[in-house]
Amino acid sequence: MRTRAAVAFEAGKPLEVTEVELAGPKAGEVLVEIKATGLCHTDEFTRSGADPEGLFPAILGHEGAGVVVEVGEGVKSVKPGDHVIPLYTPECRECEYCLNPKTNLCQAIRSTQGQGLMPDGTSRFKTLDGDPILHYMGCSTFSNYTVLPEIAVAKIRPDAPFDKVCYIGCGVTTGIGAVINTAKAEPGCRAVVFGLGGIGLNVLQGLRLIGADQIVGVDLNPAKREMAERFGMTDFVNPAEVEGDLVPYLVNLTKGGADYTFDCTGNVNVMRTALECCHKGWGESIIIGVAPSGAEISTRPFQLVTGRVWRGTAFGGARGRTDVPKIVDWYMNGKIEIDPMITHTLTLDEINHGFDLMHEGKSIRSVVVY
Amino acid sequence: MRTRAAVAFEAGKPLEVTEVELAGPKAGEVLVEIKATGLCHTDEFTRSGADPEGLFPAILGHEGAGVVVEVGEGVKSVKPGDHVIPLYTPECRECEYCLNPKTNLCQAIRSTQGQGLMPDGTSRFKTLDGDPILHYMGCSTFSNYTVLPEIAVAKIRPDAPFDKVCYIGCGVTTGIGAVINTAKAEPGCRAVVFGLGGIGLNVLQGLRLIGADQIVGVDLNPAKREMAERFGMTDFVNPAEVEGDLVPYLVNLTKGGADYTFDCTGNVNVMRTALECCHKGWGESIIIGVAPSGAEISTRPFQLVTGRVWRGTAFGGARGRTDVPKIVDWYMNGKIEIDPMITHTLTLDEINHGFDLMHEGKSIRSVVVY
Ligand SMILES: NC(=O)c1ccc[n+]([C@@H]2O[C@H](COP(=O)([O-])OP(=O)(O)OC[C@H]3O[C@@H](n4cnc5c(N)ncnc54)[C@H](O)[C@@H]3O)[C@@H](O)[C@H]2O)c1
Ligand SMILES: NC(=O)c1ccc[n+]([C@@H]2O[C@H](COP(=O)([O-])OP(=O)(O)OC[C@H]3O[C@@H](n4cnc5c(N)ncnc54)[C@H](O)[C@@H]3O)[C@@H](O)[C@H]2O)c1
Ligand SMILES: [Zn+2]
Ligand SMILES: [Zn+2]
Ligand SMILES: [Zn+2]
Ligand SMILES: [Zn+2]
Repeated sequence: MRTRAAVAFEAGKPLEVTEVELAGPKAGEVLVEIKATGLCHTDEFTRSGADPEGLFPAILGHEGAGVVVEVGEGVKSVKPGDHVIPLYTPECRECEYCLNPKTNLCQAIRSTQGQGLMPDGTSRFKTLDGDPILHYMGCSTFSNYTVLPEIAVAKIRPDAPFDKVCYIGCGVTTGIGAVINTAKAEPGCRAVVFGLGGIGLNVLQGLRLIGADQIVGVDLNPAKREMAERFGMTDFVNPAEVEGDLVPYLVNLTKGGADYTFDCTGNVNVMRTALECCHKGWGESIIIGVAPSGAEISTRPFQLVTGRVWRGTAFGGARGRTDVPKIVDWYMNGKIEIDPMITHTLTLDEINHGFDLMHEGKSIRSVVVY
Repeated sequence: MRTRAAVAFEAGKPLEVTEVELAGPKAGEVLVEIKATGLCHTDEFTRSGADPEGLFPAILGHEGAGVVVEVGEGVKSVKPGDHVIPLYTPECRECEYCLNPKTNLCQAIRSTQGQGLMPDGTSRFKTLDGDPILHYMGCSTFSNYTVLPEIAVAKIRPDAPFDKVCYIGCGVTTGIGAVINTAKAEPGCRAVVFGLGGIGLNVLQGLRLIGADQIVGVDLNPAKREMAERFGMTDFVNPAEVEGDLVPYLVNLTKGGADYTFDCTGNVNVMRTALECCHKGWGESIIIGVAPSGAEISTRPFQLVTGRVWRGTAFGGARGRTDVPKIVDWYMNGKIEIDPMITHTLTLDEINHGFDLMHEGKSIRSVVVY
């Protein structure tokens, strides 16, 4: 079949919206009509050429929601008409990782996914001239129709609006999951969140959800304050306005150091500050941000010997097929908010404008609605 | 009263064995006759002048065992005649730290202890000329008699031999505790221990105790192999004999990476290797070694984002008054071994020879018996 898609033909170039050829689902795969997709920093990291592992030409996008149109041989867990969210971290429920309660990093299709291919080692996409186009993060939601492995779709309730819950495919789950799955933060805790963008806001609401006592937000951009307060921030700190070192300032503000801190900036210096403003004895710092290629984090080992813990999280430690439907329910039940974070809605033709808005810091989330 | 002690008058100088004046215990303190004391690297770190926070003149030593001789006003938990192990990490059972199950770092007397003083801000030791001498780590076990806060003594069974269980005052508890309290390692796990000295051997036997499946030991000194095997090591790796990078070698040896790794070297490059050879998704690395002043650890944050966890431990995460008596029982019941690690027994007059043996790598533990 043919479908419209925004194709990244070359690193650093704008996406090209065009028709492409899409082959039907093979065994264990499903064809999904994408109804809406968010634009995440990770898409831009690849599009811009900053990701050394980026492959081209490819159809980017990994934060979508849509409807199953057709299923390949042997597919049992979803059927045509089901509403789904594609999962860049699949959940096979059979591999060594899925069977270990400490991780969500299912490895079932990891090597082919990393190469931009479906599990059988081929791509379903090609240009109208017949040249192959790669998949991206196993999702390629910047195409109106896409093919996904069965283990990489989460079935969600049919009444959830696509243009909002697509964000649960990455940002919402990453932020909330970092709090509840990775930090396992407890009610009454004090926390500091660095970076109040699309991920940081979701960390804030995760902390509000679990009943944190103090939720400090740190951002260099004072314009982030208002929205952050809407999502539960109790104290705002602009590092540019703090005299002297930020660590003692934050330790003092949190009365001895934070129980949990979260980096949502991707800046390795911020990651160090986030660790060091943790409470001695038990504070844990969780890295969510993706650092520039080759950048390293450092600290004195004494920080760890005196009880601080350094962790990271991918997709918020969530197991997609199990957890994503629950988060959709939380949204539908009003337990979490998404709507105010969707600041811009675009058509596929306007997708490059979405990346401009991201660069200008004007959007939290831009969503393309097909 | 007068007591014989080995005094560190100046950084970098040998200890001087001499008589000193010792004032009796004040309220909340106990006078203890030290019967035996181990020589730990931390004593040498301070004696040599490498510790920027080292204070002089002081009476070093923090790995002792002895008998209570006299108790100050209000002391209720011990009485004269009780056998005890001094605790450089006290356990007041009342401070914010003692009441938090996540840490053992009791802060009740921290600031005075760091200044070489008893909790009232004074020292009990002075020279025969009346010049003050500082306490060390709240213990000063290189003195035949010493005064300790009540919250810094663990009461142990009276039949335990002082010249063996003194080692439980630091090395044994640090190594075993890192496994059971900090890592909380499970039966069937795979582990890598870097540095097979006085701490590393105790990590090995902690791993054996909890039923680890694979216990890899890494040391540059091939002479460490035999003793390490006696304490449970299943595989020995000499980094000097490994071609290429050590990380993939260890990942391969542990079939995908270790569930737990322990640095017992104090070398920051080793600490990085220890983190990076952890299993993706869940491996945890625990820093035990004390790094040179100013040294920093580094890694790419991707190591944490893909699920590895970086921790440290002090005194093996043990709460001394609660846990030390249990570890003494384990030794007496044959659940753990200590005797083969006490390679040298010295008199107080020979104490400087003990530091020579440490430098030459000839001893695991030298113990001074009074
Ligand atoms: N681990 C995961 O699974 C995962 C998933 C999605 C995104 N991410 C990463 O999370 C990070 C955040 O993504 P986002 O969409 O929220 O980005 P964003 O650009 O919307 O937000 C980043 C915020 O950080 C602030 N900031 C930048 N430098 C700062 C500094 N030095 N101090 C304080 N604040 C600073 C910016 O002003 C901005 O508000 C990115 O690195 C992204 O790649 C990780
Ligand atoms: N965190 C704590 O509570 C605590 C308590 C006591 C001691 N320590 C620290 O633990 C560390 C170990 O103490 P120890 O008494 O076992 O010392 P040790 O000297 O007896 O043992 C260290 C071992 O490491 C080996 N080693 C050195 N460099 C190495 C390298 N690059 N690769 C592999 N092996 C290497 C040596 O050959 C030696 O066998 C020290 O740094 C000490 O200060 C920490
Ligand atoms: Zn994303
Ligand atoms: Zn799996
Ligand atoms: Zn010690
Ligand atoms: Zn305490």
